[in-house]
Amino acid sequence: MEKVICFRNIGELIQVQSRRQTPKLVKKTRCALLVSQGRVNRVIRESEVNHHDFSREVDLKGRSVLPGLVDCHTHLIFAGDRKDEMEQRMAGTSYMEIHKNGDGILNTVNATRQATEDELYETARLRIRRMMTLGTTAFEIKSGYGLDLDTEKKMLRVGQRLRKNLRVPLTLTYMGAHAAPQGKTIQQYFEFVMEHLPEFRNLADGVDIFCERDVFTVAHLRRLFLHAKLVGFHQLRAHVDEFAHQGGCHNAARLGAISCDHLEHITPHDIRALQLSGTTAVLMPGVTFFLGGKKNPPVHAMIEAGVTLALATDCNPGSGPSYNMQTVLGLAQSLYRITPDQALIAATHGSARALDGHNDYGGLLPGQRADFIVLKTNDYRDLFYYFGENFVDQTYSAGKKVNGEKDPVAF
Amino acid sequence: MEKVICFRNIGELIQVQSRRQTPKLVKKTRCALLVSQGRVNRVIRESEVNHHDFSREVDLKGRSVLPGLVDCHTHLIFAGDRKDEMEQRMAGTSYMEIHKNGDGILNTVNATRQATEDELYETARLRIRRMMTLGTTAFEIKSGYGLDLDTEKKMLRVGQRLRKNLRVPLTLTYMGAHAAPQGKTIQQYFEFVMEHLPEFRNLADGVDIFCERDVFTVAHLRRLFLHAKLVGFHQLRAHVDEFAHQGGCHNAARLGAISCDHLEHITPHDIRALQLSGTTAVLMPGVTFFLGGKKNPPVHAMIEAGVTLALATDCNPGSGPSYNMQTVLGLAQSLYRITPDQALIAATHGSARALDGHNDYGGLLPGQRADFIVLKTNDYRDLFYYFGENFVDQTYSAGKKVNGEKDPVAF
Repeated sequence: MEKVICFRNIGELIQVQSRRQTPKLVKKTRCALLVSQGRVNRVIRESEVNHHDFSREVDLKGRSVLPGLVDCHTHLIFAGDRKDEMEQRMAGTSYMEIHKNGDGILNTVNATRQATEDELYETARLRIRRMMTLGTTAFEIKSGYGLDLDTEKKMLRVGQRLRKNLRVPLTLTYMGAHAAPQGKTIQQYFEFVMEHLPEFRNLADGVDIFCERDVFTVAHLRRLFLHAKLVGFHQLRAHVDEFAHQGGCHNAARLGAISCDHLEHITPHDIRALQLSGTTAVLMPGVTFFLGGKKNPPVHAMIEAGVTLALATDCNPGSGPSYNMQTVLGLAQSLYRITPDQALIAATHGSARALDGHNDYGGLLPGQRADFIVLKTNDYRDLFYYFGENFVDQTYSAGKKVNGEKDPVAF
Repeated sequence: MEKVICFRNIGELIQVQSRRQTPKLVKKTRCALLVSQGRVNRVIRESEVNHHDFSREVDLKGRSVLPGLVDCHTHLIFAGDRKDEMEQRMAGTSYMEIHKNGDGILNTVNATRQATEDELYETARLRIRRMMTLGTTAFEIKSGYGLDLDTEKKMLRVGQRLRKNLRVPLTLTYMGAHAAPQGKTIQQYFEFVMEHLPEFRNLADGVDIFCERDVFTVAHLRRLFLHAKLVGFHQLRAHVDEFAHQGGCHNAARLGAISCDHLEHITPHDIRALQLSGTTAVLMPGVTFFLGGKKNPPVHAMIEAGVTLALATDCNPGSGPSYNMQTVLGLAQSLYRITPDQALIAATHGSARALDGHNDYGGLLPGQRADFIVLKTNDYRDLFYYFGENFVDQTYSAGKKVNGEKDPVAF
């Protein structure tokens, strides 16, 4: 007989169905989740449990069960911190001013170049384990703190090792085009990135570029994307229109980007491009919040246009040190004025779609990975209502409990 | 010999000194905190520890020690929740619209009237215990969900019982003038509140009023304050200028309010009044955030004018269900663009001043209560940098460890 684990006595089970055009949150009460070979078998009524024979039963005590949260945009492999920069910003200096002064990202670049591969691996591993404890079950990680061949490759090897050892869905992105290193112009460094792009094909699933005023242009984005396609990268992503409108979103979508990220300054024209291309819009309210941005992305216009929304932390030492997807859910609700349902769909199914993983995880549907979280209460809206509290009691990846670090680590 | 407890091996100890005009954060490293009879005796260097004899030594393992956080504005005694209302608001209805439709506060009033005194006590006790675990060591609680004599008195008796049993600094405020109950006009109900005011003198330390468009007017505020003074209430507080400018702040300050709370719509004229009267400005960024308010109080103008700022959760089931002062610190930094120092001073010394408790607690200075928190790391800026994470490891009230509920309670 096939081994089936029965997670029984579930007070409320949330799934995200997406067969129709618009993904929908479905709530079942008093039920049990059957898992076999790490995947969802099916959901039955609690009253039916005793008619079956299971290899193992887990009593979830009437609590809420939700699809694991998916963090589809992070830079979580890095060394050092930038708390001093945070204080500078709170005293009035802007993020882009700090960047232009050669500070900001380049501080992290120096620290990351100096760190050994093992050091980077260990801090990133602790970070991911803590994120899992807080409810995240699938990740994306970008390189981009090397800005030279050795360090960029080192970061991606760390990512490969994390994927292999942690056995969670983990998408890797090469983001050489993150900033220009000291001593090179944007143009010089961009040509260098283009020349060496093929060397990263076996290290990453996709590419990304920071398309922004004073960083990389829309022309750079277009060239990178076309070259990346030729080289064989499947997933094209871009940081676009975050601080000002450059047209990056429109161009990235037209060239088949799987996700366009940030989007604070996009226009109806850009939304139309996302709609036509089926590109997922990755929103990171924690960054706007932390940087004190006055402008949120046009979330409601995107919802009306049927654009798939995703949510992510952007976990990085400069513009978004928070790594907690529960925090992102609450920020998204309050800053974007969207309902708990809309935020939760974006942070599960939507983010999975940004990683092309939506058939495999993000909905807690039969056949998908049994990646889920058990809350401390029986109402998933508590995540939003009591903002700032940690409601995740247990995290499961492929049906196995994976609660990691109990406490935050002194990163 | 006097019993002295030595909290040793402190990585970083934060005190708030306020003898000068402007309170200042002082940081000491590698030191030990000596506590006798529940109060701070003095701080010595770690290297001096072995030259003394203590009744007990506690090793704090190089971590940060901060004054306990002070939550100077809450409505934490209540029954029921308003999660449905939250969803309505996220779908587009405004807080004041809900209030005008006879919903909102009145839902909580019905639930609180129906709850027994023991039920109210037990839920409030659990809430406070959880808040203590998250770092709060002094509280203010308002009545105002009864709007009749019996329930208002019941709420305040619950408050008295909490104060007696929990032995933490706890200020009680009578807020009959919170809304009008069903079946009475604002004017009718206000006369009722005025008539019975003396009956609350032995139950509460002060009075409060919700002065806002469509609720109580500035004229009501003035009459209540003058009457409250005559009756013998020492602490006058007011919810003012939250959704629109009514002149409540100016008038409350002129009449000697100890705190003016909310202040989103105050003018330079109001700031001048706060400055002249020495009234503390109580800010609750969690409410603006949760309600989707576009306007923050003029925080920098108040800082420049030398007005004392305080921070609070406003913990209540309608406009601010979050009860976590760590969350308030992060929200204050990011929404108001103030530094970690400024936010921390406001949430300790400032909030203590709003409760007239600043000589007794809030600074961790010699002679003050030994109310402090021990973080999980050695840098208090982690509270701000990794927003959304819980960094409080231990909470001490009068030198005794008081970590309460480990998990959030299903309120």
